[in-house]
Amino acid sequence: MAENDIDLVIKNAMVVTADAEHRVIDNGGVAVAGGRLTAVAPTAELATLETQAARVVDGSGMLLMPGLINTHCHAGDCIFRGLVEDLPLEPWLQTVWKAEGTILNVETSRLGTVLGFAEMLLAGVTTVMEMFWYPHETVSAAREVGLRVSTGGIFFDGPGMNDQTEDQRMADAEGFFEAYAGDDDVFPATMPHGAYTVGPETLVRAKRIADAHNGLYHTHAAETRAEQADVQARYGRSVIRHLDHLGLLDERTVLAHCVHVDEEEIAILARTGAVVSHNPVSNLKLGSGIAPIVDMLDTGVTVTLGTDGAISGNDLDPWLTLRLAALLDKGASHRADAVSREQALHMVTRDGARALGADDRIGSLEPGKYADMILIDIDRPHAVPMFDPLTHLIYSTAKSDVRHVFLAGEHVVRDGELTRIDVAETLAAVRALAPKVAASIA
Amino acid sequence: MAENDIDLVIKNAMVVTADAEHRVIDNGGVAVAGGRLTAVAPTAELATLETQAARVVDGSGMLLMPGLINTHCHAGDCIFRGLVEDLPLEPWLQTVWKAEGTILNVETSRLGTVLGFAEMLLAGVTTVMEMFWYPHETVSAAREVGLRVSTGGIFFDGPGMNDQTEDQRMADAEGFFEAYAGDDDVFPATMPHGAYTVGPETLVRAKRIADAHNGLYHTHAAETRAEQADVQARYGRSVIRHLDHLGLLDERTVLAHCVHVDEEEIAILARTGAVVSHNPVSNLKLGSGIAPIVDMLDTGVTVTLGTDGAISGNDLDPWLTLRLAALLDKGASHRADAVSREQALHMVTRDGARALGADDRIGSLEPGKYADMILIDIDRPHAVPMFDPLTHLIYSTAKSDVRHVFLAGEHVVRDGELTRIDVAETLAAVRALAPKVAASIA
Repeated sequence: MAENDIDLVIKNAMVVTADAEHRVIDNGGVAVAGGRLTAVAPTAELATLETQAARVVDGSGMLLMPGLINTHCHAGDCIFRGLVEDLPLEPWLQTVWKAEGTILNVETSRLGTVLGFAEMLLAGVTTVMEMFWYPHETVSAAREVGLRVSTGGIFFDGPGMNDQTEDQRMADAEGFFEAYAGDDDVFPATMPHGAYTVGPETLVRAKRIADAHNGLYHTHAAETRAEQADVQARYGRSVIRHLDHLGLLDERTVLAHCVHVDEEEIAILARTGAVVSHNPVSNLKLGSGIAPIVDMLDTGVTVTLGTDGAISGNDLDPWLTLRLAALLDKGASHRADAVSREQALHMVTRDGARALGADDRIGSLEPGKYADMILIDIDRPHAVPMFDPLTHLIYSTAKSDVRHVFLAGEHVVRDGELTRIDVAETLAAVRALAPKVAASIA
Repeated sequence: MAENDIDLVIKNAMVVTADAEHRVIDNGGVAVAGGRLTAVAPTAELATLETQAARVVDGSGMLLMPGLINTHCHAGDCIFRGLVEDLPLEPWLQTVWKAEGTILNVETSRLGTVLGFAEMLLAGVTTVMEMFWYPHETVSAAREVGLRVSTGGIFFDGPGMNDQTEDQRMADAEGFFEAYAGDDDVFPATMPHGAYTVGPETLVRAKRIADAHNGLYHTHAAETRAEQADVQARYGRSVIRHLDHLGLLDERTVLAHCVHVDEEEIAILARTGAVVSHNPVSNLKLGSGIAPIVDMLDTGVTVTLGTDGAISGNDLDPWLTLRLAALLDKGASHRADAVSREQALHMVTRDGARALGADDRIGSLEPGKYADMILIDIDRPHAVPMFDPLTHLIYSTAKSDVRHVFLAGEHVVRDGELTRIDVAETLAAVRALAPKVAASIA
């Protein structure tokens, strides 16, 4: 095959590009060469490219769209799924930390991460921002399963999981950026846990490392009332004001949760360009509250979507997250027109890509971008009739509707099955570990 | 086969009985004879019955539980799925009624109902309370697809869909009870639309018909603020007080929504025994609000679950409804322990059966009850690990996990496919009608 031959053509699908104009092609497809999209067009216009293609996939009865982007997750915690129930964040965290302290090591972290990444990839997530203890293992797990990942050094006051001094952790965080420089499947970051668990000096040091490498910065922020009260008491400022005062907010900063933010704090987010990762499922489950994303959107804040970890979630379902992002603020604000389907779709695609500084490479189906894409079965009762594909994607699609997933054109999920790993082995290993996990908090 | 031979044994499943004690059998199953459960027991204890069984199903890797009960639906509206978006209830209803007025007749109502019932049965719903225009067609559709239904005469002030006088409608409603007397797959009811669309006299007449046949009574109540204001202005009382004042509330009355209810109204519901059908998905979608079900549960009100119609929904997903029932009040009340998993599970099983006056026959896996049951695939990443099956059912199960559904022991969904109808024909007919539906509101 000559170098500029086509690797893959997908045709006969309904195409939702998620581009800036929300272009939809009723009967269309894509051509892929060297892992990137070379055409996004009606099927009729793909005929010539099809003759040059090494492989052709018939998308009949399916909807083609970009892979989903999850901007906040702790996939590694999947081995604790459903272990700690019906507690608010603070006592919940104490129990989770007890379990993590007993169970987690390089191997178990990796196992949980593979489980979570497998679950997400099957649901159509092709890129995830993952905060967990062993970032190199996180990258290795992502490469094993087949998705892109943003991760990096994690910071906590105190020893944390991996018993290092802060200087060691800073050096490792620095090394992490160097290790993956130039790799397009890894978006390095520093990830201090939050303003209530990490002192100002460490927060700032972690940001400097990220900035030195033009990297990302990710932290929990304004998740609960108790957190707000704690930070206010310690530093005389609310969480967002505290972070802003420390100079930590800019377009490379992704703040998970932002449930408890007032009008002025929303204005701070808009002014600085800091990105919000909205995590509606865990915000409900832990009783944290309902984030005012409609006000954030109205003020020009970039809102993206996170599943959070399965220990609070309890699954990692980007479709539930998407649907709740569109639904919750309608109910909470008594405004049926709050959060449009266009806004919601971009949260989980383009704006997610923008949060990772990667919207030139992923987040929509446009020529030149990586061929990260999913095919969704729309030949099911809950997809019929379909007056508008965006409405269907936001309000009626389920994770099980995802039949095929492609990462840079590689078929990583085929007919609902992962192609790179045997997930049964992972499930067996997690089940074998479960009695020990249960005993860890008994 | 002798008369007391066994028709079916299911074994090797994890059994969640949803009985009063929330009994779980880690490795168990059931025996079925004459459509009813004769044993619910550990697999080891089913060995003898298995030798007498006409059919044995291996439930390995699956969870067996009672079929789900949906206490508020307009499945017939499925042909309008996604047609009218982002409007609050009142203007939304005006548009919906315009479409319904143009499109609905006996045939199209039946088509929409078959579509909706197919969708629900595939998701594990074996009994539904359905409010729609042609109740005999509703029964016929339910029998065609394979589920139980509560339905009956619908009342609106004005001519409604079927151009009848009120006296004709009352006579038909009466006739409906007589037509299905003694049938255990139909739970007859009268169904006036709501206190804002039906005058007090008609509300009372409809209740008298239901009472005369020991039947059910179903209406929308306290769904929106606008409805409350309207009823308050017209009758000098809030919706629940108005219904109570008219003597319409008792244990055979199922009230859909109850979003806007104060403490005293919740006390009225508890005192009268009126049942609430909680519809969180449409309550959010239409901007109606978040029902305070945690307060209802604390006060002793029976809360059950409804999907509402797909035109507001946009799908008919009992699992999303269940999960939101457990999640929403946690977030809204900032109480992570609001709505326990035991309460949530009963809402969609036993308490649903109680709402229909049928908890002696359906709603849990107990000997003597009908063998309405579902087998759920738990060999999937999002089901692993599983420390508690109730947690998994409430917070992590998806509609697509339902692999088999049995109605009175009949295998009505086998490996994710309906056995009584060819759903492809239904989908094709709905798609063929769609351009006309779109044009009806253009």
